[in-house]
Formats: sequence, C-alpha cells, structure tokens
Amino acid sequence: MTLPLSGYTILDLTHVLAGPYCTMTFSDMGAKVIKVEPPNGGDDTRTFPPFKDGKSAYFAAINHGKQSIALNLKDDSDRAVFERLLARADVLVENYRPGVMERLGYGWSDLHAAFPRLVYGAVSGFGHTGPDAKRPAYDMVVQARGGVMSITGEKGRDPVRVGASIGDIVAGMFLAQGILAALLDRDRSGRGRKIDVSMLDSQLAILEHAVAISSVTGKPPGPSGARHPSITPFETFHASDGLFVIAAGNDKLFEKLCIALQLPISDDERFATNPKRCDNARLLKRLIEAVTLENTRSHWIAKLTAAGIPTGPIQTVDQTMKDPQIIARNMVVDVLDRNGRAAYKAAGNPIKMTDAVDPTTRGPAPDLDGNRGEILRWLDEG
Amino acid sequence: MTLPLSGYTILDLTHVLAGPYCTMTFSDMGAKVIKVEPPNGGDDTRTFPPFKDGKSAYFAAINHGKQSIALNLKDDSDRAVFERLLARADVLVENYRPGVMERLGYGWSDLHAAFPRLVYGAVSGFGHTGPDAKRPAYDMVVQARGGVMSITGEKGRDPVRVGASIGDIVAGMFLAQGILAALLDRDRSGRGRKIDVSMLDSQLAILEHAVAISSVTGKPPGPSGARHPSITPFETFHASDGLFVIAAGNDKLFEKLCIALQLPISDDERFATNPKRCDNARLLKRLIEAVTLENTRSHWIAKLTAAGIPTGPIQTVDQTMKDPQIIARNMVVDVLDRNGRAAYKAAGNPIKMTDAVDPTTRGPAPDLDGNRGEILRWLDEG
Repeated sequence: MTLPLSGYTILDLTHVLAGPYCTMTFSDMGAKVIKVEPPNGGDDTRTFPPFKDGKSAYFAAINHGKQSIALNLKDDSDRAVFERLLARADVLVENYRPGVMERLGYGWSDLHAAFPRLVYGAVSGFGHTGPDAKRPAYDMVVQARGGVMSITGEKGRDPVRVGASIGDIVAGMFLAQGILAALLDRDRSGRGRKIDVSMLDSQLAILEHAVAISSVTGKPPGPSGARHPSITPFETFHASDGLFVIAAGNDKLFEKLCIALQLPISDDERFATNPKRCDNARLLKRLIEAVTLENTRSHWIAKLTAAGIPTGPIQTVDQTMKDPQIIARNMVVDVLDRNGRAAYKAAGNPIKMTDAVDPTTRGPAPDLDGNRGEILRWLDEG
Repeated sequence: MTLPLSGYTILDLTHVLAGPYCTMTFSDMGAKVIKVEPPNGGDDTRTFPPFKDGKSAYFAAINHGKQSIALNLKDDSDRAVFERLLARADVLVENYRPGVMERLGYGWSDLHAAFPRLVYGAVSGFGHTGPDAKRPAYDMVVQARGGVMSITGEKGRDPVRVGASIGDIVAGMFLAQGILAALLDRDRSGRGRKIDVSMLDSQLAILEHAVAISSVTGKPPGPSGARHPSITPFETFHASDGLFVIAAGNDKLFEKLCIALQLPISDDERFATNPKRCDNARLLKRLIEAVTLENTRSHWIAKLTAAGIPTGPIQTVDQTMKDPQIIARNMVVDVLDRNGRAAYKAAGNPIKMTDAVDPTTRGPAPDLDGNRGEILRWLDEG
C-alpha cells in the first residue's frame, strides 16, 4: 500500500488557487510538497475568510499536508537554501506573473542548465507567450473572456459566473496532468521539461460542444439556463418541495418517463422525437410539472430511479457534503490542526486507486515557515 | 522533440464524453489511442449534432487522432483480438456502468491477474462503490446533486446549469491525472493499479471555497450571480456598450482601481479592507458603475489594463476562438478529414511543453472500425 507519487518531491512556489490546487492533488497522491513562501505574510489566502481559530479555512482546504518554509528569493543566504531544495526536487511549480522567475535568475534556461532533471510547471492567466502574456488575471476574468460565462445563465439576462472557480481549478488540473506526463518522460530520458499552462487557454479547452457548434454553424451558443441545449427533457423541474433534475436522454427513456409519471403523451406527435420535444420544450415542461408539483422531490426521485431514468436533486453544498454516496466514497475529509484535532472539512481525493490508502483525515495546513527546521534537516541528511 | 507520452498505448473502451475527453488528452500528448467500439453504430456521439459532410463535428472534436476498431466483446474471436490488445497496452480506459466489465470477464481482478502491468482507469456517474454505484447519470444530474448548480445563477432565481459539461470533463481530467500517476508508479514497481473516478465526487472536489464556507459557518453559500462570493470588487460591471469584468483582488489593486477611475474613495472607511468592501458591495458597485457607464468597455479595459488591474470582456465562444491571445497560443486547431482537408475546428492542447511539437492540425477522427487492418498488422508485428 503506497501512494503512487510517494518518493517524489514538489517544490511549490505557488499562491492563491491554481498552483496550490495543482500541488494539493500531488500531495493527496503521496508526493512530498514543500511550499516556499515570501517571509512577510506568505500566501495571500492565509488572509481569506472564513476563519476558524484565527486561521483561514480556505487556506486549509487547499494546503493541507504541505510543508512551509519562508524564503526571500532576493536574499543570498535564502537563495542558497532554495537552490539546495531545487537540487533535491523532482518538480518546481509556480504561478507568478510571467517574467518574475527570469528576474529572480530562475527562468527555465537557467534552471534547466543547472538542474537538468527538474520538471518545471508554470500556470498563469494568459500563459508565457502571446501579446497578453504579462497581463494579470483572476478566475473571473478568464471565465468571462474564455467564453464560459456567455453560455451560463438565463436567456435574456446577464451572464453569470460559474460558482466554482473553474478558471483557476481547471488550469491547475491541466498543469498537474502536464507535469505527470513530463515526469514519465523524465524518468526515461533523464531530462526535465517546462510546462506552461494558461488559465484562458484552459477555459476554451473545456468547451468541446460550444466550439463544435460555433465552428460548424457559425453561431455561438447562448446561455442554456437549467436545461441541456439540445436534449429534451433534460432540465430542472419543480416538485412540491423543491427542484430536481430529469435527464431523459433518448426516446426509450422518454417513454419510461411518461409511464412513471402516468402522463399519457408518449403517443403525442408533438413529442415523438427528440427534435420535436426540443421544439415543444416549454409545453412539455408544463405538462410534466403539472404532475411533479403534486408530490415531493424525494417521491419522484425514488420513483424515476426505480424506472431507470437518470434523475437527482439539486443540492446545496452542505447537502452534498452529507450525501450518503459522497460519505461512502470518503469525499469529505477532516483537516487536522497542529494539535491533531479535526478542525476543518475539505473535499476528499476524487482519484480512488487500488493499493493506495484513502485516509479520512489530512495533515494540518502549515503555519508560515512552520517546517523550516524539518526541511533544513532533511536537506542536511540528503 | 518528442511528445511526453510517445511510446505509451491506450486501449480506449469509452464513449460519449468523460472517457473520450480523458483519452483525447493522452492522444494530444503523444500516446497511441486505440478506440474499441461496439460494431453496431459505435460511440453514441457519432450521431450527435452538429454535422458536417455527414459526420458529427462533436465526435470529431474529442476523438481526433485516435484509431478505431469495432469489436463485439461477447464474440470469442473478437475477444481474442481484444486480449491481444490488452497484452500490448499500457492503459485500459472505460466509462461503462459499474458491473459491465465484470460481466464481460474483464473486471479488475481478472485483468490484473492476466496483465499485471496494465493500468485500468474507469470513470462513471457515481463510482464503483457506495449505495448509488449502479445508478445512471448524466452531466446535469451530477452538476445538480454535486452542489455546483446551487452556487451558479442569480440570487432569488432558480439555479442554472454550468454551460460547459464540467460534470463529465472534470471527471475525465481527474481520471487522466490518476492514470498518469499510476503509470509513474507502474514504471518503477512493475504493477498496474485500477483508478475509479466518480463524476459526482469530482463535482465536490472543485468546490474548495464552498466546502470551506459550509463547514466553518454551517451555512452553504448561495448563487453568487456574476461576482466572487468573498472578494470585492470582483464582478461584472456595465460600461456604456456592454459588460466587462473587474477583478481587484487585494487592497493594492483596489487603490489602483480608485486612481484609474478617478474615484475618490480609497480613504473611505467603508471600503478600507476586503471584508468591509464585501459588506458594502452593493454600494461600491453603484459607485463604480456611475463612472464606468460613462464610457465604452474597450476604453475601460485599456485603461485598467494599463494600470495593472485584472480586467477583460465577456466574450461569446466565437469571439474567444478569434481572440489574438488564443490564436497566438495555438488554442484553435484544424481537425483534418480523411482526405487531409481542414474540416472541423477543435480546442487545442492547453498543456504547452518544451521540446514537444504543438501542431496546428489534428489527424482525423476515425471512421467506425476504420483502422482495423492497421491495428491487426501492428499486433502481428509486436
């Protein structure tokens, strides 16, 4: 029982979200992650609400299990420590503005010359090339510019932001994937690579359907509200006590749905095929809701599930965190504080793997510079 | 110049989106991907609109560069071919309903006994364990049940679906990450692992912020419309001709913003810190829009960018596809048809890497069983 990345060391210069999310996934898979923070304050998210016992729960949620050392990369003696860390690390990850690492003397060409086996992963708003490389970005800027917001929300109203920070997180995930692929190659070739991921690029990369529609029809899709843009019925419906989803993706499921709802319309010409159901979606929604409003959503979810129709509730995040399937999958874990007490909750590791432990707790998020002694001893022993 | 996964072979039993997206990222990084499809019709998405020259642009967008062979896994001679493929593959990926592989005799324990080096990746709606393992799911069902919809949309209105299919795609990305980590381990240990990713788990895993808020405050966050839930100002603003985003993530940026807008409020006690700006967000939005409504969004984007403040337009998907930064990063590629003509557009590879080619075209999406001869010859040569 070993985690797949045990034995790998990640030197983590990242802050806020995209980079720390990437290195969190490595930590969850067994890598040693050493977070190198600037001495005055460290990672900005240490000051992000909400707080518990004076510490940021947000910081804890994505930095659990990492070690921290504070280094001023403009100070010679701290640079010497950093370079000893580079010599021991398999991977360096950073999400500074492009150009910052070069100014510090740690750009790719310098690093690669000095540490040829090192894999160097960078994530930034717009990437290290192109006309806007040096512009600053945050999640919402790339959600907006990257097209995702234009297809999220209700028709006729202003677009909305995706509630999850997918501008950061998806980019952090692509970076993780690139780093792992480069490590596979490095373990054979002996030579590291630089990986350069842009948050803007990453938003376009998850729009497979919208890109296909835009390029073939010439018309970009608009916001689709709470329904699938080209399948009906595949949307939210009101029950007597709340909203739930019915996703009847084909004719067979639609027929089963009509039977389960005792709705005598499966022979109705207006709903005979998916294109016709799409044309008459508003009417169909009202016919279905005239039935579903008569009972609770748990009634309908049980009934439709028994009939083999994909369905489910719309849950708030606390409901999801208590969902029996989520609990059974160990998807909510306790983050310990320095005293070993369960202090915070965090999402578990979604990558379940044979022969790997899947602990129900996570080690504490580090205090700033909290592991200096341990890290320096480890360097001396190396 | 080699791609990092060159030399790895992926046997791809997947269909629709989560699985095919995962194997597409492997193909883009140089792996050989052999798509094994059922003989009658193959992958469902071959029939998904929009079409061009009678072929699905949707299928092309996520299956370019893969090979296809049609095999009936209930037929003995086809099973023999499949098993020869298993013996040559590094990875098997599938997204069937849990239990299907076991019924075919290709469950993990059988596979691992016969092919100990094989890494086996599975993605499904709810995972291979837990009370709901066997339930069917679609993207929207897990977006709803996973909590993402509850924080997406406008306050006081029904939640909306995220326009991108993040229920599928994020799960496919976690699977890719798990497979690469398992390959790293396999290349050292000689033993493969099974990776089991659930679409529902994956939705919770991207809610870092909402999980922290729910667990500390006991109150789940609601929909945040077009603003960040805990940073202000970080939202959309109206200019005279449309919406744009300002993301002033810290005190320094807020001060710069006040100067750029000539808004004399940087000393105002009500806006002195981020928590105070959050408490007075509605007031602050009106003060800012009273200025921004006086000019166009391109004016403000240029002005704020010059001042170093993260900002940008809300773009439709076709606008994003023509964005100079996206073009400079080679993020829109041509997918060739069988005659070598640029037939479709697809998102490029967001994982940019040194010493790796980043081609502007992709090989064609395969016809069903279109590479049988080539695949069988490759087996014979092996």
